[in-house]
This record gives sequence, structure tokens and C-alpha cells, in this order.
Amino acid sequence: MIKVGIIGANGYTGFELMRLLAAHGRAEVVFASSRSLAGQKISDAYPTLAGKYGDMVYDDVDLERAAKCDVIFACLPHGESAEICGKLIDLGTKVIDLSADYRYDDVSLYEKTYKITHARKDLASEAVYGLPEFNRDKIANARLIGNPGCYVTASVLALKPLVGGGVIDPRTVIIDAKSGVSGAGRKADISYNANEVEGNFKAYGVTTHRHTSEIEEKSGAVVTFTPHLLPIKRGILATIYCDLVGTLDDVKKAYSVYDSEPFVHVIGTLPEIKTAVGSNCCYIGYKYEEKTGRLIVVSCIDNLIKGASGQAIQNMNVMFGLPETEGLPLVGFHL
Amino acid sequence: MIKVGIIGANGYTGFELMRLLAAHGRAEVVFASSRSLAGQKISDAYPTLAGKYGDMVYDDVDLERAAKCDVIFACLPHGESAEICGKLIDLGTKVIDLSADYRYDDVSLYEKTYKITHARKDLASEAVYGLPEFNRDKIANARLIGNPGCYVTASVLALKPLVGGGVIDPRTVIIDAKSGVSGAGRKADISYNANEVEGNFKAYGVTTHRHTSEIEEKSGAVVTFTPHLLPIKRGILATIYCDLVGTLDDVKKAYSVYDSEPFVHVIGTLPEIKTAVGSNCCYIGYKYEEKTGRLIVVSCIDNLIKGASGQAIQNMNVMFGLPETEGLPLVGFHL
Amino acid sequence: MIKVGIIGANGYTGFELMRLLAAHGRAEVVFASSRSLAGQKISDAYPTLAGKYGDMVYDDVDLERAAKCDVIFACLPHGESAEICGKLIDLGTKVIDLSADYRYDDVSLYEKTYKITHARKDLASEAVYGLPEFNRDKIANARLIGNPGCYVTASVLALKPLVGGGVIDPRTVIIDAKSGVSGAGRKADISYNANEVEGNFKAYGVTTHRHTSEIEEKSGAVVTFTPHLLPIKRGILATIYCDLVGTLDDVKKAYSVYDSEPFVHVIGTLPEIKTAVGSNCCYIGYKYEEKTGRLIVVSCIDNLIKGASGQAIQNMNVMFGLPETEGLPLVGFHL
Amino acid sequence: MIKVGIIGANGYTGFELMRLLAAHGRAEVVFASSRSLAGQKISDAYPTLAGKYGDMVYDDVDLERAAKCDVIFACLPHGESAEICGKLIDLGTKVIDLSADYRYDDVSLYEKTYKITHARKDLASEAVYGLPEFNRDKIANARLIGNPGCYVTASVLALKPLVGGGVIDPRTVIIDAKSGVSGAGRKADISYNANEVEGNFKAYGVTTHRHTSEIEEKSGAVVTFTPHLLPIKRGILATIYCDLVGTLDDVKKAYSVYDSEPFVHVIGTLPEIKTAVGSNCCYIGYKYEEKTGRLIVVSCIDNLIKGASGQAIQNMNVMFGLPETEGLPLVGFHL
Repeated sequence: MIKVGIIGANGYTGFELMRLLAAHGRAEVVFASSRSLAGQKISDAYPTLAGKYGDMVYDDVDLERAAKCDVIFACLPHGESAEICGKLIDLGTKVIDLSADYRYDDVSLYEKTYKITHARKDLASEAVYGLPEFNRDKIANARLIGNPGCYVTASVLALKPLVGGGVIDPRTVIIDAKSGVSGAGRKADISYNANEVEGNFKAYGVTTHRHTSEIEEKSGAVVTFTPHLLPIKRGILATIYCDLVGTLDDVKKAYSVYDSEPFVHVIGTLPEIKTAVGSNCCYIGYKYEEKTGRLIVVSCIDNLIKGASGQAIQNMNVMFGLPETEGLPLVGFHL
Repeated sequence: MIKVGIIGANGYTGFELMRLLAAHGRAEVVFASSRSLAGQKISDAYPTLAGKYGDMVYDDVDLERAAKCDVIFACLPHGESAEICGKLIDLGTKVIDLSADYRYDDVSLYEKTYKITHARKDLASEAVYGLPEFNRDKIANARLIGNPGCYVTASVLALKPLVGGGVIDPRTVIIDAKSGVSGAGRKADISYNANEVEGNFKAYGVTTHRHTSEIEEKSGAVVTFTPHLLPIKRGILATIYCDLVGTLDDVKKAYSVYDSEPFVHVIGTLPEIKTAVGSNCCYIGYKYEEKTGRLIVVSCIDNLIKGASGQAIQNMNVMFGLPETEGLPLVGFHL
Repeated sequence: MIKVGIIGANGYTGFELMRLLAAHGRAEVVFASSRSLAGQKISDAYPTLAGKYGDMVYDDVDLERAAKCDVIFACLPHGESAEICGKLIDLGTKVIDLSADYRYDDVSLYEKTYKITHARKDLASEAVYGLPEFNRDKIANARLIGNPGCYVTASVLALKPLVGGGVIDPRTVIIDAKSGVSGAGRKADISYNANEVEGNFKAYGVTTHRHTSEIEEKSGAVVTFTPHLLPIKRGILATIYCDLVGTLDDVKKAYSVYDSEPFVHVIGTLPEIKTAVGSNCCYIGYKYEEKTGRLIVVSCIDNLIKGASGQAIQNMNVMFGLPETEGLPLVGFHL
Repeated sequence: MIKVGIIGANGYTGFELMRLLAAHGRAEVVFASSRSLAGQKISDAYPTLAGKYGDMVYDDVDLERAAKCDVIFACLPHGESAEICGKLIDLGTKVIDLSADYRYDDVSLYEKTYKITHARKDLASEAVYGLPEFNRDKIANARLIGNPGCYVTASVLALKPLVGGGVIDPRTVIIDAKSGVSGAGRKADISYNANEVEGNFKAYGVTTHRHTSEIEEKSGAVVTFTPHLLPIKRGILATIYCDLVGTLDDVKKAYSVYDSEPFVHVIGTLPEIKTAVGSNCCYIGYKYEEKTGRLIVVSCIDNLIKGASGQAIQNMNVMFGLPETEGLPLVGFHL
């Protein structure tokens, strides 16, 4: 069994890692730390974990102990994560970082986007972007993974084959994205109070959202990115508009890159949020509007699974030579 | 007191008319018909109406009786409505038609959009489009009003001043719209079953939705229109993308047309669904993206009020020379 | 016009007062204070208020200025409210206190329940309990009203006629109550984060909830009271179990006390939350179980209206000799 | 691999069986029938199944073919199920019936409750009630299982140890139960339209719900049973009131029967719906009210898993000698 540690385990991505790994046949969580809840029983924070994790308590962040694990999932705020992951790498363990810190090829773009100086530029260039559909070989040999953002995963899986194949005009891309509330993490913030969220819907971060630069770097397109907050817990749907320069056959051919992917499905209809939620899959569909020459692509994922913890486990599976689908849900909840 | 009749009163727009008119000081519902519920107590279908409407029952559709009202609100399916409204006009009453039948200037566009022959072309050209912010004078003298659609109200109030003022390129408009479930009416349909809606979000009618042609006719823009279904009961938010050709000052000037409007508010931030829901107001906000030269406009209404029954009452107020805000909520529920 | 002031106006009951009073023909809000938001525009906190309240800002809590109003609604935490309301009374204005501080006949019961010493015992005995259906005459002559709690309103309106009429055994009462999230107020608390609330349901305060003693004092019954949190914004439904000692005719007779009440409706079926939400009405229905001899009563209100701000306005109407229904919704939202 | 067939596979319990069995290491679905969708691709009805079930189509109900499976899960309406399950038994396969038809020890109680004549009384007496926590040995040797109802599972797991241990007075039991909408199945019914459900909550079937007699037969208590409809998709929470006749130590001792059960957890706090949803576990908590001598027990399950499809798979595991937890989630979704 692969020994897994989770740092920042009390948040939603940390919980989701524990939930998914409970059904993983080749890995087990042996270390889970939380500064705010150190010493407390994990099942007090998440009673549903009682059956699987019994009396396990949240550790303090003890990097020496953490480094005894075969792999660490870091669920930490950006900025802070770079340094801690760096120390763990120095101590000799493998690390999958769910923050933004090791995602960018261009560190200066990261620094500009997050208004922060990168603490470990040495490792930033070594880290591999954890999108297995495009980086499988590098991931297999990596010791440090920058796990993609949720909006980015939905957007880049939809756009990259189209841009790469020259099928769309990459300067015409608009991404109108909608996310469930768990995308904001586990926060005591009046904006996410149920009274303010239920029955509501709003745009936020319009023209300024940080994921824009990551989407642009990874997809090769220039994008207008408008995220919105849905009154649901999990799931992302991105409605993407762009000018088609090729034919619909070219679109089909471009997407054939996913034909044998277990976790990306290009379907004949437009996917809905409930198609994806609960699974580690990205579902993509598209329609062409003759009147305007626009291609409209809809891409859906579960932000906590393919958009975070599930993709992180997929990366772990690749890094350790396990079957890539091990422990990962192929089917969503629907309900 | 103005005597009001409602035909098709058992649906959601019919209910909403009864709810809003319960607080109207100058009009009262004296006739409410429903084919499917004729003879039944209205408060059996909607128990909350018990206090105000007591033992009132749904009438059958008796046009002679209906025509004794000062004004009829027709809440009927398109196609069917044209004929019934026509008969009521022939019988001498005023009519506000909430269906699509009398909305179009270009009847052939209506016929192409709805794949139907218009039963009363004679009246179609006489009917006045019931958007008071632009047609106030004509409405005041009309006997037949085509009450705008919900998506159209949100879109046209946002676009018309910009297109009219030459501030945006009208061939670059994308409307990514999101609506609550009440927009689909009161239907026993598995697609709207709570299990299928809650926690879900989806696009529908992509490139083919009927409101597209109404939006294009009324705004003067060529639009890509993509509606989505929100897991909420009421409210519409439209995120509109277009290329700015003027300056931000031009935008401000264009929108100054609403400065003294009681029911349209251009605000400094981007409105949310909850800003509008419960009120008869349309809230508009916008942001400019320098990188792409795009203007992003967000427009919100309550689809059942400003997008249907409230706007219909606003039209009635104008038609009968009442204060335009009489009986109409200026403040939304927020919760 | 009656000049209304609201202290603690930025919370949900304060907002609801402003929303409801926007449609009141005989009263207007001229003063609204908030310690945390003093000096800020009210429409920044609640953009939907922009149309009605324009550029009005939150005042600081200046009791001298507040006391120039004809009546003050106090939306303050218990404990603190007693003193501030007392000062306002001393300054000569009328006060409707939405906190628990002036609700109890037995001040020692209040002190035991809230673990606090009452700051103004002199006024506690003078204050009138603001349940107009039972205290109308006293309210008309009062200068200080203790406005009932939300759970209490739903429970006492259902129970008091049955206990008073000797129709049920008052020692057998179980109230299984369910409330929307707005009952907890406007709080940045992880427990009310949408992720934790949506799709969830839970009991809380079991055997220890503070409203128990208020229900017992006002209804005359000994009650097991179990509140639950519903994943909705507004509304309370109380399912009440008790042993019937009279007949069903006795129940009917007991409830006939409400025959001419505008805001209490005993209906032939069991009310649902949506029957009441949006209105100032309490809906009551009941069923008898022969097998066990139990009467099951269901009572519904909107916790923010009949359970707080609407009832407070109803009390104001009575205090100032206005029609009791002025400005208060008789019909709920349904949607 | 155990070959599994599902009859009535297009409903929610059928879908849930397919979803859960997708992660089962020792069983696979080889036959799935639906009268209404026969011949259609399963992933057209549930696109999320595309990844796992590819191009599999719904079969027609061909009992000969079905009987070639090692076990059939029958997801059929009561009444109809008795006969079809009977034929499958006659054909020599094992059957787990998710309907009510084979649940009762007392067939006449079934017939009275469901107002129907049982088609296969011969098998009714042979069938084993599929509550593994109490019937494990009999299930291991059964060929026909009556899988318990969802409300019943939550109620009986909470009550049976208390009644059996003489710890509570079995004539004082009130079960105030709340269920998500999926409990009503996949139906095009206006009552379950999202507009009618969202933001609402209601009691239904008060004093008349069919599950009452099943709860009484299996728990040994006389119960007042009041189900309510929650505006959520999945989950049941039962708040149970009864007079304690023993001590709290007796309660603890009675519940120690679950100490080594993988799917029943008696916890120190009161469980919430989200504790259970997504898992195959029943969570139980309790509190004592000294004032009234009442014990208040809260019991939560996921109605589609422990209340239906998960429990059915648990029964299959027992019948085929597999580890009882194989393929069944020990951890819930939380989100």
C-alpha cells in the first residue's frame, strides 16, 4: 500500500481526498494534518469519516513525519504552499500540490497573477503540470506535481485540442463559467452564507479572476473569462464561445485525442453539471451556430474531483505506476 | 376600481398576477378562468390565496363574461392566444397578452420562429409592444399589448441603448443567459422534477431558442443567445458580451435614458439575481475588458414580475392613466 | 405619515422591515442605524433597496435622534436590547422590541433561560406581548412591545386555543419544528455556509432551545421542543403532537377564535411552508389518529414576517390605530 | 464475477444499483431491463453511465434471459413485483425484491396495507427480510429477499434494540420523519416539480402512510408515523420520541448490538442528513429529556443506498458469501 499524507486535510479538498482514498485499493491515508484542528478527531469535523477512519486525529504540520509518507497531497493556500512543498521535496518525498504555486511554466506570470514572489523558483521549473491527458509521461517521472485549478481543467480540456489543431481562432475565446460553492472552499464568510447563496446567482471576478492567466498559458488562447457562482455545492459548467475557422469534422478530429481516455468523454449532446458531478470525468459537447460562425462548447467537471482531489489521485496513480483509474469514480451521482 | 380578468389563471404568471394585484389599490381581479380547473376553488390550487380571494372559483373560459372586464390578461400558449385575444378585442375590452403572439413587428418573423400561421394579422400590426421604458405613449393609447418575454426584457433593456447609441458593434453580441425554473411554467415534466433540477445546471435550446428573434428585432443586434436552467425558482441573469466601439462615457450616456425610470437601475456594481427577484425592477451593471476591447454587461430581472406579470401590470397602469408604480414592488425579497 | 426608526437595521429582520414598509401607505422609515455599517449606503448592503431608499445611509446608534421617531423597531441581540429600548422609552418614543428581552411575563424565567440579569425590570412588567390575536387591546395602549419569537408564534397560535379550551392534555405536547436558515440571522458562520446547509437537514438545540420556555409560558403546555434546520431561506413548519381529550368538534370550536382574524387561517388540509412564506399569515391544519388518540397539528408561518418583522408592523398598526392589515402581505410568494 | 440483472433499471434505485456496482469488484451488471426505454442506450437516460457502461442498451423484460443471471434485483411497483419475482424464483435464479411485496411476515397485513391480494403467498412466507444487521444468517441461505423500505430501515434500526431490550415503552413511539425527493422515485408529477419543492417543506400521508405497518411489524412498537418532504434529493432523518422506561445505560447496552456492524454507527452527537448521504451507513444518536422522561433518537440514512440499493447489494454480498462491505461506500459525500 502506498502511504499517503495530506497537509491541510480539514478543508473540502482534503476531505475529498480522504473520501476517495477510502475506496482506493492500493493507497491509504496514514497522515492528515491541520493547523487549526490539530489533535482533534477527524470524525468530529466530518462524522461521515467515522466508519473508515475511526479515531484517527488531525496531526500538526510536522514535515519530518509527513516526509515518511510515499506521497504528500498539499491542500494549502497559494504562496504558503510553495515553501512547504519545497521542504518536503528536500526531505525526499513526492508531492502533489493542489495550490497554484507549481502550476505555471512562466513563473513571472504566476508572480504577476498572484502578486507574490515565488519562494522556490528552483522547483517551479522542475514541477510538472498535472493534467494527465496531456502530460502523462512527465507525470510518471515527476517528484513534484502542480495540480491544475478547477476552472482551468474544465476550460483547457475543452480548448487545447481546438487551439492546437488550429480549428478555432484563439483570439475570439469567451469562457462563461459557472461553479458550485465548494469551489470557494470551507469558509465562514457571509458571502457564502446559505441565505445569500440559495436562490441566487452572480458573476464575480469579472475581467480579473486569477485562473485567466493559467487558462491562457495552458490552452494557448486569449480568453475573456467570466466566472459565476451557482447555488449548488459541486460542479463546474463552462460555456465557451469561439470563432470556428475549420470545419465540424476538424473539431471531431481534434477531439479524437480523447478517444481512449477513461476520464474525458466527448458526447453527442451538451453535458449538464449532473452528468459530471461525483465522477472524475470531464464531459464535453459542442454546437455550431451558422448565423455567426461561432462554435459553442460546453464542458463539465466535478470541481472537487476532476477539478482537484480526483485529478490529484489520478496523478498519484500515474506517478506510482498504478492503473490510472484505480479508486476513481467513473460514474457520477446523478442525484 | 379597474375590473381585471385573467384567462389561464392557474399557471404561474396567472398566480403572480393575482398575488401582485392583491396589493394594487386601483384594480381588482373579478374574473379568473382555467380550463383544467374550472369550477374549483382557486385557494385549493394555491392555498396562500385563501386570505385574499376567499371562496372565488376558477371560471370556465367564457369570453362574453370575460369581456365585461376593463382589461384582460391572457396567460395562454402562443398560437392559441392570438385568436382568443382577438375575439376579446372584437368584444370591446382591452387586452394584455402575455404570450408571444402579439410581440413582433414583423409577423413573418413570428411565423417563422413559432412555425405557425398568425390567426389575426389584422391585429398583429396594431398591437403595441409592452416595454413601457420605450413605448410609453403608444401603450397609453393601445387596446392590445404584446407583453415582452422574460429573456427579452432582460436583454433588450441592456442592449437597446447601446445599439441605438452606436456604442457597441451590434454584430458581436453574445448573450449567455440563465433562468430559474419558473420560466418553464407549471408543468408535470420529468425534466423539471426536483431530483433532476436541484444541484444541476444546463444549457438548453442552444442556437435555436425562440426568444432569439424577438431579442434581435427589439434590440437591433445580431445575437448568439444561450439560455441555461438555474436550480432556483425565479430570476434571470444575462451576461452579455460585445465589442465596445465607443468609450465608457458613451456607455454611461447611452444608459442615462433610464435616469428617471422607476423600474430600471443602472448600478455601479454587477447586479445579482437576488438584487432583482421579488421586485419589478431590471438592474444593469457593466465592466470593460481592456485586453479584448469587450464590454461585459450583466442584466437581472425577476422573470415572473418584470419578465411577465409585473410588466403586464405596469402596462395596465400606463393604459389606464394610473401611477406607473401602483401596486408594483420597488424592492426585492433579497431572501 | 408615521415616522419609523430601525435600530440594528442591517440584519435580516431590519431589511425585512425596510422592504415591507416600502409598501406601507401610512408609515415611512426615516432612521435606520447599524453600528457595523454606520455611514455606508444602505443600498450597498442591500442593492435591491436602491430604488426605494436611494442614497440613504445607515446612521450610527444615536438614541436622541432615534427618539424623534414616532416608533422604533429594535433589532438587537437580547440582553443589549433591554437597556437601549429602555432608554428610548425614557426619551418618550414608542418601541417594538424584536429581541426576547420584553417577551416574558415572568422575568425570572427570562433570566434563567437567557442566563442574564434583566437591565430594566421596571419596564419588563409593563411591556405587552405583541401577539395581536390575543393581546390586541393592550397593544393598542402600549408604549413598549415584546415582539414574539418565530418558533413561538407558530407554536402558540396553534396550541393556545386547544390548551385554553381544555381540548388537549397539555402535558403531552411534542413540537417537532423546522425552520429556514434566515432564522439564524445574518452570520458569517461555517455552520450556515451554503456547502454545509444545502442538501442537509439536522436537529439542533434538542431539549435545550431557549424558545421552549417562551412557548410554555404563552401556551400553558409542557412541551418537548425539537427545532431542525431546513435547507431553505425562510419559513417555519411545526408538527405538533398531543393527546386529544375532547372531540374534533371541540378542536373546531376552539379554533373558531380565529374566524375573523386576517392573519390566521385554519384550513381543511395541512399547510405547507410555501403556503405561508411571503405572507404575514399563520396557516393551521390538523388530523386525528384514532389508533393512538393523538391530535397532529401543523402550523406554518414565514419566520421573517409573521415570525418577526411583519408581526412587528402589525403591532405598530394596532398601536397607532391604523387598519391592522395596512402594508402587510395577505398572499405568499408560492414561488 | 457474479452476474447481476436489474429489472426496472431506469428508475432511481435501478440507476443507483448500476452506479454502485460500477465500483464492485466481484459483481457486474450484465442485464438491465426497462419496459419504457427498451432498446435505448442506457447512457442516453443517464449520460454519466457512458464511461462505465458504454453502448449497453435497456433490455425488454425477458424473464428467461434475466434468469440466466446469478441474481436479479427487482425495482418494480408493488403488486406487480410479487408475480415477476415469483417467476424468476421458479426459473431458478436468486432474487432481491426492492418492492414491498416480500417484506411482511404477516401477508394479511401486507394485503390490508397495500389493498391488494398477494399473488404468491407460497413465496411470501419463504422470503427473508433483508435487514442484514438482524437477519444475516437467514439471508445467507435465502433465494428470495424482501429488501426493506427506506423509512423503515431508518426507524427499525433505531427502535428494534430499544423495544427488544425493554428500554422504552413501545406504545409511546412517535416518528417524525423527513425524506428527500428521490424517495418518491422518478416521476413526472407537478407535486415534485422543482418550483413546488424548492424552498418548501410539507407533511404528507399523515396517519395513513403505508410504511407504518412495516415499521410496526419489524420494530414491535405502536407508532405514530409522520413523513415530511424535504427540498433535497437524497437522505432521510427520523426524529423519534418515546418514553424511556430503563436508564441511559440500558440504552447504551441495547445499542451495543451494533458495536461491530460496519454500516450502523451509534455516535455521541445527533447525526445530520449529510453524515449519512452517499454512504451505506445508518447513523444513530440520542438525547434524554429529564423534564418529560422522553428519549429522543435521531436516525439518518441515505434513502437510495442503505434505504434501497446499497442495502440490496449488502444482501447480495451476504447471499453470495462475499465480504459484506464489498463495493459499498463507508464514507458519505458530505458535500
